[in-house]
Amino acid sequence: MRLDIITCLPKILESPFDQSILKRAQQKGLVEVHVHDLRDYSPFKHRQVDDYAYGGGAGMVLMTEPIARCIRHLSEARNYDAVVYMTPDGKRFDQPMANQLSLLKNIILLCGHYKGVDERIREKFVTHEISIGDYVLSGGELAAAVVADALIRLLPGVLSDETSALTDSFQDGLLAPPVYTRPADFEGMRVPDILLSGHEAAIEQWRYDQALARTRERRPDLLKED
Amino acid sequence: MRLDIITCLPKILESPFDQSILKRAQQKGLVEVHVHDLRDYSPFKHRQVDDYAYGGGAGMVLMTEPIARCIRHLSEARNYDAVVYMTPDGKRFDQPMANQLSLLKNIILLCGHYKGVDERIREKFVTHEISIGDYVLSGGELAAAVVADALIRLLPGVLSDETSALTDSFQDGLLAPPVYTRPADFEGMRVPDILLSGHEAAIEQWRYDQALARTRERRPDLLKED
Repeated sequence: MRLDIITCLPKILESPFDQSILKRAQQKGLVEVHVHDLRDYSPFKHRQVDDYAYGGGAGMVLMTEPIARCIRHLSEARNYDAVVYMTPDGKRFDQPMANQLSLLKNIILLCGHYKGVDERIREKFVTHEISIGDYVLSGGELAAAVVADALIRLLPGVLSDETSALTDSFQDGLLAPPVYTRPADFEGMRVPDILLSGHEAAIEQWRYDQALARTRERRPDLLKED
Repeated sequence: MRLDIITCLPKILESPFDQSILKRAQQKGLVEVHVHDLRDYSPFKHRQVDDYAYGGGAGMVLMTEPIARCIRHLSEARNYDAVVYMTPDGKRFDQPMANQLSLLKNIILLCGHYKGVDERIREKFVTHEISIGDYVLSGGELAAAVVADALIRLLPGVLSDETSALTDSFQDGLLAPPVYTRPADFEGMRVPDILLSGHEAAIEQWRYDQALARTRERRPDLLKED
């Protein structure tokens, strides 16, 4: 997989992709992540990328030209399966969408900032509009990092043990059961005996029951969809 | 506001808080963000913070002691209004929750990693469990950055023009209307005439109509709640 992230604030994304799982996935050659500074594609002086909104009002809008030039430059080198715009009015990102997108080869993630991008960019270039949740952020950079993380960890070989991602919340439609590690007694709070029993089948059943109970209590909406 | 973020991978969070709006908010003294390395609070050799899950299975679990020591160390210095654990089975983060949390003074954001934290930490210390969406990430770090960004931009004085945050998606229960900036003609795609008319009241009405139409088309669920 190749991810091209277009942003007017590339430095925000430096550390998240340079640590832990996302760094190792790149080092292993399982994913390429390229962050592009929108200002490098500005045809204007002072590398301008945003301007006031037509019709007045607060907040700046990212201009058409720098984004169009960047997307066209990238598209000359390869075909993109998706040009994704990160926006709070997009389709809500969830695990099934992450699973689907993780099968694509080349993806552009376009980050808005301030009031977002000029609507004509959305009409002309964008194939997917994605929101990571019903809240507003300063820009699309953290949202792009979230989507990138969710996708990359699903790529074969990224997690050391493939079953690890499969037992996550949502992958089986249930929240994950509680987890415990040493010590067995923490200030009088004991690990459930069943987990110390060594009885594998009983532990699996307990975990399933716990996952089901937790989902029923916290997220009954996930059960209704079945 | 003071935010204390507890993580076993503090470097992930370096660049997001060192750029743009989040950096300026700290420089202006409007928010303090402190990132704490869980390993500094480990009583074990090699600064261990995680161990295998009781009962077996894939993935590591963050141990009780380092987290307990870190939270207690912070709590000796000041009272915390909220100890938030970032977890996919938490309550879903949204704009009303962001508005509420932005009124608090001292907040701890605890990041899970791998399979999450030992359940007993959640029972003993955590006051809020928050999920930024129905998907799984490598850890809570990006989720904590998302929550921090959503909160900090609401603090008075952080955005240069206070109306800017108020006209965002969700603040009035509607998605935001489309935005446009120069040029008026982009490769034959023209800005709607109304936005060039200078007729303020008509522009406001057009924006409201667009916001309503977009919400009806993309997120009818937001309208039903009224």
